[in-house]
Amino acid sequence: MKLVQRFFLSVLMLGIFATSYAQETTEIVFHKSHEVKKQKAPFSDVVQAGNLFFLAGQIGMDHSTRTMVEGGIKGETVQVIKNIEAVLAQHDMKLENVVKCTVILSTMDDFGAFNEVYSKFFTKKPARTTFAASGLARNAKIEIEVVAVR
Amino acid sequence: MKLVQRFFLSVLMLGIFATSYAQETTEIVFHKSHEVKKQKAPFSDVVQAGNLFFLAGQIGMDHSTRTMVEGGIKGETVQVIKNIEAVLAQHDMKLENVVKCTVILSTMDDFGAFNEVYSKFFTKKPARTTFAASGLARNAKIEIEVVAVR
Amino acid sequence: MKLVQRFFLSVLMLGIFATSYAQETTEIVFHKSHEVKKQKAPFSDVVQAGNLFFLAGQIGMDHSTRTMVEGGIKGETVQVIKNIEAVLAQHDMKLENVVKCTVILSTMDDFGAFNEVYSKFFTKKPARTTFAASGLARNAKIEIEVVAVR
Repeated sequence: MKLVQRFFLSVLMLGIFATSYAQETTEIVFHKSHEVKKQKAPFSDVVQAGNLFFLAGQIGMDHSTRTMVEGGIKGETVQVIKNIEAVLAQHDMKLENVVKCTVILSTMDDFGAFNEVYSKFFTKKPARTTFAASGLARNAKIEIEVVAVR
Repeated sequence: MKLVQRFFLSVLMLGIFATSYAQETTEIVFHKSHEVKKQKAPFSDVVQAGNLFFLAGQIGMDHSTRTMVEGGIKGETVQVIKNIEAVLAQHDMKLENVVKCTVILSTMDDFGAFNEVYSKFFTKKPARTTFAASGLARNAKIEIEVVAVR
Repeated sequence: MKLVQRFFLSVLMLGIFATSYAQETTEIVFHKSHEVKKQKAPFSDVVQAGNLFFLAGQIGMDHSTRTMVEGGIKGETVQVIKNIEAVLAQHDMKLENVVKCTVILSTMDDFGAFNEVYSKFFTKKPARTTFAASGLARNAKIEIEVVAVR
């Protein structure tokens, strides 16, 4: 073979090996929280597996002060979504990247009020499952967990 | 290089670039519901991320009339599974494509009756988690959420 | 083309076709349980979709005897994690491969005790969502479901 051909073939084979390798293993990244006060938590804000991002459930807490926000179900829902947006923003994503939401309320009586706030933010309409639990951390009225894709 | 070689190399490089590109980004599709009366819902029936399909939780509702079916836990379980099958069918999938089920009951007392119906349909045995919530939408006795893969 | 060139091109094209095919379909494997007494269960311990492993929720049951372990929330949490490790080990994975945990308690009063045990094992810090259900199978105090990636 001539030199130029060898060069092309080498580039091609390198490309193929790189591609094959990428399929065999999926890189996992346990991302450290951008919130200083959350870095000691026993869970990550988000763990990345290839293009899939698994976010930890968020409650209506202001992480800078570690206190729950006021405003009942509507106030908490807004804060939950702000928290999710903040985590997504660390990885160049927006609410548009969310494919699935799991919504856990403290009572189904809050469903209407929650839904009103939710619908304004999640305009792309991720798949969603909603139910009421018998208890949430910090007596939260709502917790939302999302899966995002980049 | 001769012409025929250049042609082959071009085809090869095109293939490699297409393949590499596909790995860098995952296409997200928020599928519109096939049920006219569900198209205004604030969530999608299913969101596709590459080969992964995240379905919204389904309850025992007949979506053509938007009413809950009769028949208690068994009747609702059958309807839930019919609803899931209908969504999967829109994307050339069957229950065999379901890899994970999350089953939310209104009470664990319904577990046996639910399980009897469930086992007849999900013969491939997806991974499953089951628990009772303190509340579900529309006073449903059961909600099932699935992840499917094509 | 010379023979050697034809050979190289064939290998290259084979590689590209194999790679492209792998992206079009994701292999699903419903893994049979390694626990003899669990093989009749209506769900798999784990279902594999490419590099993603969806594990069924685990409770604090000793699967060799099919009895719940003693020791309250701490004893059950240890057994749950042992059960998860046993399933992961069947596929050459460890707790380090877990990207997401869903923790379902029977009461949030157990949160502190659960968390103490959990933190010792899940040192890589998967993303996590925790809530209390109104009921779990076998009156379990805790159920943990995980997604793992290889």
